[in-house]
Amino acid sequence: MRQSAAATHDDVPQIAAAMLDRLRTRGPRVHCITNAVAQNFTANVLLSLCCVPSMTLSSEEIAAFVSRSGALLVNLGTFDRERREATEIAVRTAAQEKLPWVLDPVFVDRSAARAEFAHALVKRGPNSIRLNAAEFSTLSGNEPTRGTLAAYARDNKTALGLSGEADLISDGERFAAIANGHALMARVTALGCAASALVAACCAVEPDAWRATAGALVMIGVAGELAAAKSHGPGSFAAAIIDALYTLDGPTLIARAKVT
Amino acid sequence: MRQSAAATHDDVPQIAAAMLDRLRTRGPRVHCITNAVAQNFTANVLLSLCCVPSMTLSSEEIAAFVSRSGALLVNLGTFDRERREATEIAVRTAAQEKLPWVLDPVFVDRSAARAEFAHALVKRGPNSIRLNAAEFSTLSGNEPTRGTLAAYARDNKTALGLSGEADLISDGERFAAIANGHALMARVTALGCAASALVAACCAVEPDAWRATAGALVMIGVAGELAAAKSHGPGSFAAAIIDALYTLDGPTLIARAKVT
Amino acid sequence: MRQSAAATHDDVPQIAAAMLDRLRTRGPRVHCITNAVAQNFTANVLLSLCCVPSMTLSSEEIAAFVSRSGALLVNLGTFDRERREATEIAVRTAAQEKLPWVLDPVFVDRSAARAEFAHALVKRGPNSIRLNAAEFSTLSGNEPTRGTLAAYARDNKTALGLSGEADLISDGERFAAIANGHALMARVTALGCAASALVAACCAVEPDAWRATAGALVMIGVAGELAAAKSHGPGSFAAAIIDALYTLDGPTLIARAKVT
Repeated sequence: MRQSAAATHDDVPQIAAAMLDRLRTRGPRVHCITNAVAQNFTANVLLSLCCVPSMTLSSEEIAAFVSRSGALLVNLGTFDRERREATEIAVRTAAQEKLPWVLDPVFVDRSAARAEFAHALVKRGPNSIRLNAAEFSTLSGNEPTRGTLAAYARDNKTALGLSGEADLISDGERFAAIANGHALMARVTALGCAASALVAACCAVEPDAWRATAGALVMIGVAGELAAAKSHGPGSFAAAIIDALYTLDGPTLIARAKVT
Repeated sequence: MRQSAAATHDDVPQIAAAMLDRLRTRGPRVHCITNAVAQNFTANVLLSLCCVPSMTLSSEEIAAFVSRSGALLVNLGTFDRERREATEIAVRTAAQEKLPWVLDPVFVDRSAARAEFAHALVKRGPNSIRLNAAEFSTLSGNEPTRGTLAAYARDNKTALGLSGEADLISDGERFAAIANGHALMARVTALGCAASALVAACCAVEPDAWRATAGALVMIGVAGELAAAKSHGPGSFAAAIIDALYTLDGPTLIARAKVT
Repeated sequence: MRQSAAATHDDVPQIAAAMLDRLRTRGPRVHCITNAVAQNFTANVLLSLCCVPSMTLSSEEIAAFVSRSGALLVNLGTFDRERREATEIAVRTAAQEKLPWVLDPVFVDRSAARAEFAHALVKRGPNSIRLNAAEFSTLSGNEPTRGTLAAYARDNKTALGLSGEADLISDGERFAAIANGHALMARVTALGCAASALVAACCAVEPDAWRATAGALVMIGVAGELAAAKSHGPGSFAAAIIDALYTLDGPTLIARAKVT
């Protein structure tokens, strides 16, 4: 699924700008298995970039929805029986249809049952995994460093997008650190979940998962900075970041991206 | 349930203004079976017009909630076992209590199981069905035209509210086209679902389902225009349309309504 | 759990200001069993004050989440099988770990099954119950007065926070009436649910449940007033109250609190 493309971190801003255009012109469908806290905000983030979200969990119809989508998100934020059944069918369908899918192993550090489920999902070959440091440590058994990220990505043939002070993106060969974003992003629920959905959307228009992951995280980071400048706190920020994604343009992305 | 009233499309603005007053003075309870993505926004749209939403799905208590409500909404957006059981009980209760109910057959074009469930619900006699063109085509087997809408409405003894460039309302005899609204309405999730809940609320204060459907869609369309003028993208628009419904008055509705 | 502290209603503004600081410095984890309508808004209210919400309902992992939290909220707003199972495990875990927990018996006046479940939960010893007049009447069999509140609180060894024109707080011995707040608070869904979550958060940093309940309701009431001054209706208000909580400071709280 990944290309052995020559793209390096220097190319990420242009990659992000090109993907932004493709999202708007192609409007990919993204099926999201995500937690109830995140569903509304995630749908609005996708719609702001002209993507078409769907979120059904019914085991009778999720295969039909996934097979007509351009990408799948599996977020573990609500870990109930229904979502686990839905995940099994959805991941199988994505594999059959050769559709990209993204794993967001929310809170695996808090529950052994959830960590075990996530381990099994990683073996199913997600194109990208977006997670934070505590979640990475639980999955990999290591503190996140450039080396441990690369090793985990290589071993599992996936791209990793680790959020934190700087977002770190690795696929085992290539690496990028993105220093965009704003502290308010941690004070709005579901922002990470929505970022993972945006990674999935980008995977629908960009077959190289490392590019898709890095580009999506640049978009959301730059939008966060623009939104913070117009906000009075996390309530107005949540609306402003959706406005910022809606009005984001390539030159602004390229000018503001901080990728090393 | 419908009246053979002499109302025509020319009367729709005044009908909408009168219903707006009745919503605020009577504050009808509206029980909503709706999808998890839409629940919060739908509740806030109803509250903005002094209606009282409830949303429980528990099979043990939904009959009690529906029987104490003024109208019922059945939205298929999340098509799980629990919601199908709840729907069966709720529709039966509405029939027993002679309460109006509205069907929103979300995404029936994406899944055969969902379309089959919707077909069976149409036979149960909803007072109004609010849907888009793809959903109408799946249900009726025809592209939406003035003629096919009228035929489907007549055959199923229901009012239809078809959203699109212009919203088309038919009950088989009467017809209205509403040209209000704004492109941002398609970039906010659950706006259609909330519009369906507003149709249900209007059915609680107006026994003529054609009037209730047309009036509700004028309200939401005009509110969308007012909100767009104060928004910077879909994030601020989602809040602004709720503010616009809250502050909407009859003279503004009548002045801005574009009904033919 | 309650202290026989000498605190009276005169101390509530200072108590609220001190708890506000403690929330921000300690950032307690609050596990919330709450309804789907309220989950997103509740999470954002908690995050705005540096608390860490979690909301899983899975019977396999809720014990792990609760035992790592500082407090638990049980809100009955969606009364399904899964939430009832989750509640049983969560309340048992809270008792074992000696964690404070708060009950919000939403809509018990609408359904006998729900009222029965709430009665049983009250016997399990919540540290605080936040509810409205109709819910109190259903639970206690009495109209809410200073006397009936005190009797119910004493009989059930709990603090009560009754929302209304003025919020009334009683633990059977002490009493406070809080006249803060704004009419727009009744036009936003889940505001009461989020207030209950804030009571739970305060219980995590203040062992005296009467103080925690009164302080939390002062915070939300003052934030509501500040937000209303910057809002154009309930849509912008819902974002503004989160901004107001985020920027709230002790001196403002003390200056604006109306506690008798």
